Amino acid sequence: MSSVCLSMEGGAAASTPAALPYYVAFSQLLGLTLVAMTGAWLGLYRGGIAWESDLQFNAHPLCMVIGLVFLQGDALLVYRVFRNEAKRTTKVLHGLLHIFALVIALVGLVAVFDYHRKKGYADLYSLHSWCGILVFVLYFVQWLVGFSFFLFPGAPFSLRSRYRPQHIFFGATIFLLSVGTALLGLKEALLFNLGDKYSAFEPEGVLANVLGLLLACFGGVVLYILTRADWKRPSQAEEQALSMDFKTLTEGDSPGSQ
Amino acid sequence: MSSVCLSMEGGAAASTPAALPYYVAFSQLLGLTLVAMTGAWLGLYRGGIAWESDLQFNAHPLCMVIGLVFLQGDALLVYRVFRNEAKRTTKVLHGLLHIFALVIALVGLVAVFDYHRKKGYADLYSLHSWCGILVFVLYFVQWLVGFSFFLFPGAPFSLRSRYRPQHIFFGATIFLLSVGTALLGLKEALLFNLGDKYSAFEPEGVLANVLGLLLACFGGVVLYILTRADWKRPSQAEEQALSMDFKTLTEGDSPGSQ
Repeated sequence: MSSVCLSMEGGAAASTPAALPYYVAFSQLLGLTLVAMTGAWLGLYRGGIAWESDLQFNAHPLCMVIGLVFLQGDALLVYRVFRNEAKRTTKVLHGLLHIFALVIALVGLVAVFDYHRKKGYADLYSLHSWCGILVFVLYFVQWLVGFSFFLFPGAPFSLRSRYRPQHIFFGATIFLLSVGTALLGLKEALLFNLGDKYSAFEPEGVLANVLGLLLACFGGVVLYILTRADWKRPSQAEEQALSMDFKTLTEGDSPGSQ
Repeated sequence: MSSVCLSMEGGAAASTPAALPYYVAFSQLLGLTLVAMTGAWLGLYRGGIAWESDLQFNAHPLCMVIGLVFLQGDALLVYRVFRNEAKRTTKVLHGLLHIFALVIALVGLVAVFDYHRKKGYADLYSLHSWCGILVFVLYFVQWLVGFSFFLFPGAPFSLRSRYRPQHIFFGATIFLLSVGTALLGLKEALLFNLGDKYSAFEPEGVLANVLGLLLACFGGVVLYILTRADWKRPSQAEEQALSMDFKTLTEGDSPGSQ
């Protein structure tokens, strides 16, 4: 029972650190700018987006920036932003955002493979594509393992707390690898299309370079919010109590049975 | 005086976690493989390295992989590897490794600018070059600020402990940005030189893709060792006591004066 008391204490004591909302607002501003700028780049210099034409390729970068950069980043921030909500609600939101990200990334993946097939281009020869497939597989596995440990009610308690730090580390790493892969893809798109004009400081090249720096910056800001020790969601005791609570509700398990 | 007692206790209690040496050994194996593979790539497919010819360019990737990836990564690991040495020794080693890395990176920077100048190529137009300059400037500033806070004996104690988490975060971020920049540079070198042959799975392309994955992997392993909570160097109290000690020795300052 002591853990339940801790949980209530934890809930009452949880206040939002003063600077956190500004950093979160900045991350959202950056994230939306990224999406808008990717759209602007594709619209201004690449003819826009359509599924049934050569413009199908352009769905790829847009989906990836929305899914595997912006939404994935936001999914990581959920535990910092909703620090006073019930853990269970936050957990479901975290899982849902990752599902949206995964589905949008899947559309982006289909777009590029379909485009390559129609054009007769080779698949999976570049470093960008190798990193991309790696990210996608890791992201999917992380989602499945995360779901079975944290949302599916059967996982034993000790296993959850042993897996949690690994889940957080791999989550952050997959996010950073996604950002890196986006940078490689952007670079590839520029070198394929601009060629020698890139070195003449063409507006498209400068816009895309700025987009690249903003991508790296978004990755950095999300990582900062995520790793700052005094911004972490208060006590692990609270989480343990609530997971226990969840188990009790769903399985009729006794909190003392761990 | 109590902090000095803590220091001695901390020193005695500090034991090496069982799995840490294996991870460190793996990181070193990866790091050396990276350097060897970069050398092999440049030797087999790019004609080797020389300062006074077109091969001057090749000094750039090799210096950057040695300096800003391998040595910078190792400098971050110093506090995990030498956990039972005096903090002061570890600190000096950390600073020295970063200096070596900075000097080698400077040689790599001179190589590429000098090569561009001789060839009449434009400078600083690509995303790789923008990220590279950003990394270099941030790295230099981080070194200077780190030196003035932690090695130069004048910095007040409270400032040191407030700056420490920022120093660690920015250190890790600059390292990851270095790895990302190396990936962009590798991709650029492949697309410039291989062109259409890249999509035909030329051996050079495959070798360089594997090198890229290993670069990302090295970044991931260093980050894992660095962030794993139970692998952190024992108590902050120990560090405080030793910094105090250092101040006392160098300035004749009283430990009670903070």
